[in-house]
Amino acid sequence: MRGRFITVEGIEGVGKSTIVPFVQQKLEAEGRIVHVTREPGGTKLAEAVRDLLLSDWAETILPQTELLLMFASRAQHVSTVIEPTLQAGTDVVCERFTDASMAYQGGGRGIEDSFIESLAQLTHGETSPDLTLYLDLDVEESSFRTQNRRKDRIEQEDLDFFQRVRNAYRKLASKHQRIVTIDASRSLQEVESSVATALAGLNK
Amino acid sequence: MRGRFITVEGIEGVGKSTIVPFVQQKLEAEGRIVHVTREPGGTKLAEAVRDLLLSDWAETILPQTELLLMFASRAQHVSTVIEPTLQAGTDVVCERFTDASMAYQGGGRGIEDSFIESLAQLTHGETSPDLTLYLDLDVEESSFRTQNRRKDRIEQEDLDFFQRVRNAYRKLASKHQRIVTIDASRSLQEVESSVATALAGLNK
Repeated sequence: MRGRFITVEGIEGVGKSTIVPFVQQKLEAEGRIVHVTREPGGTKLAEAVRDLLLSDWAETILPQTELLLMFASRAQHVSTVIEPTLQAGTDVVCERFTDASMAYQGGGRGIEDSFIESLAQLTHGETSPDLTLYLDLDVEESSFRTQNRRKDRIEQEDLDFFQRVRNAYRKLASKHQRIVTIDASRSLQEVESSVATALAGLNK
Repeated sequence: MRGRFITVEGIEGVGKSTIVPFVQQKLEAEGRIVHVTREPGGTKLAEAVRDLLLSDWAETILPQTELLLMFASRAQHVSTVIEPTLQAGTDVVCERFTDASMAYQGGGRGIEDSFIESLAQLTHGETSPDLTLYLDLDVEESSFRTQNRRKDRIEQEDLDFFQRVRNAYRKLASKHQRIVTIDASRSLQEVESSVATALAGLNK
């Protein structure tokens, strides 16, 4: 039996890195073997690309450069880690995936959806999430929650950028049934309860 | 007046790095200002991507990963260096460009031409070489000439790979008028004489 592929999405400060271990724990409690990973990254080469992507550079990074680096790391991650792991029957929980490219490089940077979709097709044709937990939060609250964090190159963008990213995420969520929107403005307990309900849906 | 964009292509050992300075010198002798660059590379970020591309990795690098990294570095190189330099009226001489992706990742690795062409469109839509000097040599001679070199990850491929690369280059050369095929099996003097003739054609 093929493993289930679960992605966790959302802008900064929505609680992705708190929810990922919760998802892992819930799945393991059902007796599943779980591999946790993240994007950009997930292999040595892909993590090296991540470092390039999130570093500050003296030169301006073109949206297309950013997008192509994201998909280069994703191509490598899917083929060497995600797909073989799923085929071995292990569940994969991944913090961010192609929806993030649609949101950040599409919505945020303005690259056309259709181009991102063809990159996705080339990069991971048959590998698509079974369930995506989209943690939704307004950008002012996100900004408030992350004000004391050290921010990487992309996190340093302004509120307008993150508003476009959020809008793109919400548009994706309205389009794809696999995406469950979770109101991340509530207490952790409430958020976890919604996540647990969404995970229960995987077994139906 | 926009500068002229000249690329130098071919497999290993054909003499690209000897011909590039010769091209520069010929153009400068005409009073042109010339910027010499190379791919993958040409900016700090693009050179960092080059290092990732040509290093040996414990993991297998997927053809798609290689292609996307090539185009990420190219997107950055075109937008921050090549295009502004041409617009400033300076000639650009670049060792390898998109033809190399068609030859190596297309012919060599088997990625479809149409996908590489759409990446090229996204990455450098309007920026195309005015003249491409394709140095042609058979793969056994190439292999003989480079036998004592320290080889990078791609150069370590076998003769069959380079035969497919050469075939792809020759197919491109038969398709595009901007590509001048130069028989690189001859003496340096003869090769330079052909290059000079091709450069003279730029002024017509």
